[in-house]
Amino acid sequence: MAGLALDIDPRLRVNWRASLSLVGTVIKYLSVPLLLPLLTGVYYGEGIVPFVATIAAVLVVGFGLERLDPDPDLGAREGLLMVALTWLAVGMAGTLPYLIAGTGTVASPVNALFESMSGFTTTGATVLADIGTEHHDHSILLWRQLTQWLGGMGIVVLAVAILPELSVGGAQLMDAEAPGPGIEKLTPRIRTTARVLWLAYLGFTVLEFVLLYGLYHAGFADNMHFYNAISHALTTLPTGGFSPEARSIEAFSAAAQWVIIPFMVVAGTNFALFWKALRGDWTVFGRDSEFRFYAGVLAVLTALVAGLLYSGQGIAQTPGIAPIVGEVEDSVRQALFQVVAIVTTTGYASMDFNTWSVPAKYALLFAMFIGGSAGSTGGGIKIIRWLVIIKSIKRELFSTVHPEAVKPVRLGGRALDEDALRGIHAFTLLYIFLFFFGTLLVLTTSWLGGYEIALLDGLSATASSIGNVGPGFGAVGPMGNYLDFPVIPKLLLIFLMWVGRLEILPVFVLLTSAYWRS
Amino acid sequence: MAGLALDIDPRLRVNWRASLSLVGTVIKYLSVPLLLPLLTGVYYGEGIVPFVATIAAVLVVGFGLERLDPDPDLGAREGLLMVALTWLAVGMAGTLPYLIAGTGTVASPVNALFESMSGFTTTGATVLADIGTEHHDHSILLWRQLTQWLGGMGIVVLAVAILPELSVGGAQLMDAEAPGPGIEKLTPRIRTTARVLWLAYLGFTVLEFVLLYGLYHAGFADNMHFYNAISHALTTLPTGGFSPEARSIEAFSAAAQWVIIPFMVVAGTNFALFWKALRGDWTVFGRDSEFRFYAGVLAVLTALVAGLLYSGQGIAQTPGIAPIVGEVEDSVRQALFQVVAIVTTTGYASMDFNTWSVPAKYALLFAMFIGGSAGSTGGGIKIIRWLVIIKSIKRELFSTVHPEAVKPVRLGGRALDEDALRGIHAFTLLYIFLFFFGTLLVLTTSWLGGYEIALLDGLSATASSIGNVGPGFGAVGPMGNYLDFPVIPKLLLIFLMWVGRLEILPVFVLLTSAYWRS
Ligand SMILES: [K+]
Ligand SMILES: [K+]
Repeated sequence: MAGLALDIDPRLRVNWRASLSLVGTVIKYLSVPLLLPLLTGVYYGEGIVPFVATIAAVLVVGFGLERLDPDPDLGAREGLLMVALTWLAVGMAGTLPYLIAGTGTVASPVNALFESMSGFTTTGATVLADIGTEHHDHSILLWRQLTQWLGGMGIVVLAVAILPELSVGGAQLMDAEAPGPGIEKLTPRIRTTARVLWLAYLGFTVLEFVLLYGLYHAGFADNMHFYNAISHALTTLPTGGFSPEARSIEAFSAAAQWVIIPFMVVAGTNFALFWKALRGDWTVFGRDSEFRFYAGVLAVLTALVAGLLYSGQGIAQTPGIAPIVGEVEDSVRQALFQVVAIVTTTGYASMDFNTWSVPAKYALLFAMFIGGSAGSTGGGIKIIRWLVIIKSIKRELFSTVHPEAVKPVRLGGRALDEDALRGIHAFTLLYIFLFFFGTLLVLTTSWLGGYEIALLDGLSATASSIGNVGPGFGAVGPMGNYLDFPVIPKLLLIFLMWVGRLEILPVFVLLTSAYWRS
Repeated sequence: MAGLALDIDPRLRVNWRASLSLVGTVIKYLSVPLLLPLLTGVYYGEGIVPFVATIAAVLVVGFGLERLDPDPDLGAREGLLMVALTWLAVGMAGTLPYLIAGTGTVASPVNALFESMSGFTTTGATVLADIGTEHHDHSILLWRQLTQWLGGMGIVVLAVAILPELSVGGAQLMDAEAPGPGIEKLTPRIRTTARVLWLAYLGFTVLEFVLLYGLYHAGFADNMHFYNAISHALTTLPTGGFSPEARSIEAFSAAAQWVIIPFMVVAGTNFALFWKALRGDWTVFGRDSEFRFYAGVLAVLTALVAGLLYSGQGIAQTPGIAPIVGEVEDSVRQALFQVVAIVTTTGYASMDFNTWSVPAKYALLFAMFIGGSAGSTGGGIKIIRWLVIIKSIKRELFSTVHPEAVKPVRLGGRALDEDALRGIHAFTLLYIFLFFFGTLLVLTTSWLGGYEIALLDGLSATASSIGNVGPGFGAVGPMGNYLDFPVIPKLLLIFLMWVGRLEILPVFVLLTSAYWRS
């Protein structure tokens, strides 16, 4: 491709029909997972119209779009367009069950889109005023959980199998073993990789369900019954964070919280490591510099927060409800759970961290920017980028003293390509700029819309949306919701979830004229 | 130098004696400006012991340090060490008048160091509980103003004449016309540049004094008498922000505020532009892309804030004191003054912007990260870096579509060196990382020290210190002070002012082993 003159090669113009055709394929296949909430509805004797109708709609729209190009030939540009549009289209399809069921605050179009995009992007921010099976059908809440599981699986495949092919963002960093020749035809090797990762993802989900449901049967988790066990297994691995319980994971026993913690850690880990480990090489975790950094960050932040909670410096606003002060297990568990939940961008809450003191709360705000590992379902800036940035700053300091020395940034024993490094810098700066500027827009449009949100609440809502974390502080805290935002800031937050999930560049590239012109 | 083997060339080891000798020279010359507060003390019949003693001390220490190396030969490493140590040494020397005078909260060592470093770094954050000539000698408050003027002049010389020689940070961007061969011997050309810039700096200061004092005589500014006119002229050009009035610029008439605004704008402009303009080419402002961007940022943020203030969406907490709602001149002046004061990092206040609504306040917090132009006295990340970052993100998006294309980032018609670009990325990321991490340390050490500062107050104190702005929000707002911080966070904030003023790298380089070895 590189040898051809750009302005005469027709293949380099965007074949949007091919992109839309593949979006149609994805939409069409949504009918399969939709059978799960449909069967749940049948089991609980609830209305199944929302799911029957949605299945019909996705089949009609999906097959319709596919007809735009019966034999789609996908280049890099078509891939970018397809990826960006798929998340939007799937998010829109996901609103149908909410709109048709018509229960609760999620029955209006913008709210339904917020909840659906928050689900598929694995953000986990909610506009449901009342959560719980007493307010909504089991089938509807299960669909809400399932959107996260599907979105998380999608992002794993995207990160490992498709994005590296498109040379987008930090994807060059993935040392998956299958750097194929292009995605025009998905190679067998990429298909294999994707299949193995799906199996690992599915396997961990099933394992978590078995352990949680086992706790219930063993009498260690009163309310972790079949429905709750499957619901939480569906939202842990995608670092999603939705829960059918209004109090999130605070609703469950300490034993259940201890079981969920390692699965959140797994969800924030590069899935390629598990693949290698399962093939026999368990030392891969110790040798992987990103994993070591990830473990170190979790340990340091947990120690800080646990110390604050234990010493009584951790709980500020409501001194009456501080039973964890001076309790070792409680302090460590709450600190570890919350640090892991935020760093991995899962966003579960084991208690209302709004009641924490300022330094402990800030540690969580800080953690929102860290994010999961490359090749995980976690969002945020991601561990690998911080690692590369720290190394490149060290290199910059070194070259101030030795301007004549040529010293590459090394990662895992290999010299990092300068183009990849530049891409990581640009991504991170764009991410932070979007956070700063997005907050300005969210705050301004909220106030103009009559919603006088506090500064910290607005800052954390923006950081949480772009990082796909879920909860923030104050009104949008773990026990609160995003319902009161006016329409414009709600749409802004949806946009941030979308660009955050796709690592910004695939969306922003579509906004450049260079993308559309020859 | 490049051709020599690094580990055998003795010139590449740090000659700290040479650095300290030149620090001594700077310290010694502090005795000259110290005559100004001394004469002020004589005029007002106040005690002159603080200044006589300080003059004696700086002469003894200065000459003493100079004797370490009577003929200092300065290489790049010695230059870095000298720059970093000079600001520290001058900051320490500046504490003596406060400590000897012994009036007010600035009479203790850590507070004196805070006030002195805040002065010389042109930050303008204060630990004075009571400001005003009824609480302190005129001479002491004049010394406080003078530290900023000296620090501002120092940074102009540093940015234009010395840092480019050391190839530090974004200094390569300065298209000063005198890129000499090295600072071992200051070339006549650099001396010329420095002298012209000093004259421009002095000229603007005198002009502002004349205009302010003229307003007083013309009856347009009641309290802008001789002492106040000179005091504010001394802290505008360095983007300092100290005022001998407790209410900052709110204490003065609208006319005085309108006079101060353009001088703040000048202070945030690249001084090299004035040099060129004074030599006849006034079109240089329109042709300079940084100046255009600077003007655009000021215009957009002012329009946003003025709209919020005018519409009544701007004032939140104390509706009773909102006389500017619906007042065009008032709304525009307050918005313009405050946006200019924060973007340029001057930090003056024309009203207590703590009373503003959340979006208006956030606009100022956002503005703290923008900063002045390269080659100005302003702090922050600086306009030129944002401009380069935006261009490099655009280039990154372009190369996602055209990976085979080689497209340099252009600035002012010239292709920017990739190394300079990399340095700008690394600087900006380090700056933001220091802000995030510094806030964590400031909040944690404050709370552990018993000072329960709010999150926004802590965030803004850190952003304001590293950006050399001065005020923040809440307790550290424009009508508040930094007195209540415990010792450790105070020292942290002093550190942030210091590294912020020197654009981080000269200090951080000293922390690497590569700097000290061979
Ligand atoms: K999440
Ligand atoms: K300042």
